[in-house]
Amino acid sequence: MTFPNSVRIVDVGPRDGLQNEPADVSTVNRVELIHKLQDAGLKSIEAGSFTSPRWVPKMADTGEVMDRIKRRNDVSYPVLVPNIKGLEAALAADAREIAVFAAASETFSQKNINCSIAESIGRFMPVVTRAISEGIKVRGYISCVLGCPYEGDVSITNVRRISSTLFDMGCYEISLGDTIGTGTPEKSVQMVDAVSEVVPVPNIAVHFHDTYGQALANIYATLQLGVSVIDASVAGLGGCPYAKGATGNVATEDVLYMLEGMNIETGIDFSKLLSASAFISDIVGRPPQSRAANALLKKQLG
Amino acid sequence: MTFPNSVRIVDVGPRDGLQNEPADVSTVNRVELIHKLQDAGLKSIEAGSFTSPRWVPKMADTGEVMDRIKRRNDVSYPVLVPNIKGLEAALAADAREIAVFAAASETFSQKNINCSIAESIGRFMPVVTRAISEGIKVRGYISCVLGCPYEGDVSITNVRRISSTLFDMGCYEISLGDTIGTGTPEKSVQMVDAVSEVVPVPNIAVHFHDTYGQALANIYATLQLGVSVIDASVAGLGGCPYAKGATGNVATEDVLYMLEGMNIETGIDFSKLLSASAFISDIVGRPPQSRAANALLKKQLG
Repeated sequence: MTFPNSVRIVDVGPRDGLQNEPADVSTVNRVELIHKLQDAGLKSIEAGSFTSPRWVPKMADTGEVMDRIKRRNDVSYPVLVPNIKGLEAALAADAREIAVFAAASETFSQKNINCSIAESIGRFMPVVTRAISEGIKVRGYISCVLGCPYEGDVSITNVRRISSTLFDMGCYEISLGDTIGTGTPEKSVQMVDAVSEVVPVPNIAVHFHDTYGQALANIYATLQLGVSVIDASVAGLGGCPYAKGATGNVATEDVLYMLEGMNIETGIDFSKLLSASAFISDIVGRPPQSRAANALLKKQLG
Repeated sequence: MTFPNSVRIVDVGPRDGLQNEPADVSTVNRVELIHKLQDAGLKSIEAGSFTSPRWVPKMADTGEVMDRIKRRNDVSYPVLVPNIKGLEAALAADAREIAVFAAASETFSQKNINCSIAESIGRFMPVVTRAISEGIKVRGYISCVLGCPYEGDVSITNVRRISSTLFDMGCYEISLGDTIGTGTPEKSVQMVDAVSEVVPVPNIAVHFHDTYGQALANIYATLQLGVSVIDASVAGLGGCPYAKGATGNVATEDVLYMLEGMNIETGIDFSKLLSASAFISDIVGRPPQSRAANALLKKQLG
């Protein structure tokens, strides 16, 4: 058991979160959310996606978002990029970090990005090479690492193999996504343990969904392996349990509450994070999908 | 790290849960809930409270509930008892297990039960002695073990001392309650570790509230110490985050989902538990306060 001294939280709310919310959020408000998150001390904020607006209409304004962000030198604003065309758009928007995404399940890969896992990796290869040559950092997402909505169980060997490929290709960080949230602590530990044989622990991020309420327990279990990068979504954006297509991102506030209780440093100011959470929850028209945020906001009201 | 092979879940929903719900639930429905829980395989179901109806009006029908339950030999139906008068009512209702309750915080003890911790223990002494002489099992609850709404931090030394006293008095099980839900995993481990110096681990139960979303992480952390008794509340009864006075009991469904994923035996049938959860949620007029229940019920609907 080696807990990290500090953890970097990657807030995926402005992209992964808002993309999966029923409400439409204006460019101005998405930018404001990003500003509030960086004011709160977040150092990695997923800002958007240069995918086809036909597939992901909610992220069609990513170029404008990138243009309007008052960037800080110590903050990274990764954007999703599916292909060379997306990379060119990202470069035009002066993105300094991109993310590519593969699945650990063949069926999910086919249904989600219309190609096999091998084809998706082949397609990313030139994207990653070109990005790195332009001095752009590349994050590699792997989805369905603990279960697939079509196939059920997913082989850990698959997850390890794809992690290894993406890392060797040049991704500086591999984010392991439990897309459907069915993972439990011991399985999470086994999976991360296997990946750590091919990717050094400091380069592993965990991306848990709270669909079944397991996210914090899984995070705690993987912190014991030394994992120090955690994806989370302010206000649990993308996680409304009653919305169709809900993905259930774990809320940044819940993660931070646990880390603070464990004296693990994050550099995040809780009250400023709460203000970001209240701001975007008001806009999407529902309370935060975070127990810690609701409890603390209720306390503030007295 | 020694995970237990099996865990007993104590479902506190019919008492601790319903007592803290805004909705009124009829005697018939409370009995039906208890029947559904025992059908699902629960072996400990908190059935009611023989406290003054003036203080706890929602539990005023406990005698009738106890009378109507179709009891099973392998199921226990503990009832709360504050004093000799309560014990007599419990004996008259043929209760076979009672629970007494002390606080780990002086201010909470004063505000909640109008006496000091020492006075409350003095008051329980004859209750426990008499109960044991009548062959009744006694459970000891300690509240505020990880924080107090009035005092903030609570001394682990206090928790250990009161645990020791209740155990030595004859309580067969000490349930450690994080009443306000502010506990996080490392603090939970330190607290349980301290208690285990005076109470054998098999006699320790953990009672976490999910007010800040920390309950499952805390449970996972204490399972690593070998803890094998977990208090939880079907449908997260008592835990509605938007209700006034919400206490935030962790949902039995979320706990069970985690334990099943860890191959820890509980004897509980998940689909029958879900049916109990849907039944009582319908009656109290809101969705289950359980992410696992909501996700699984949504799946059942297709």
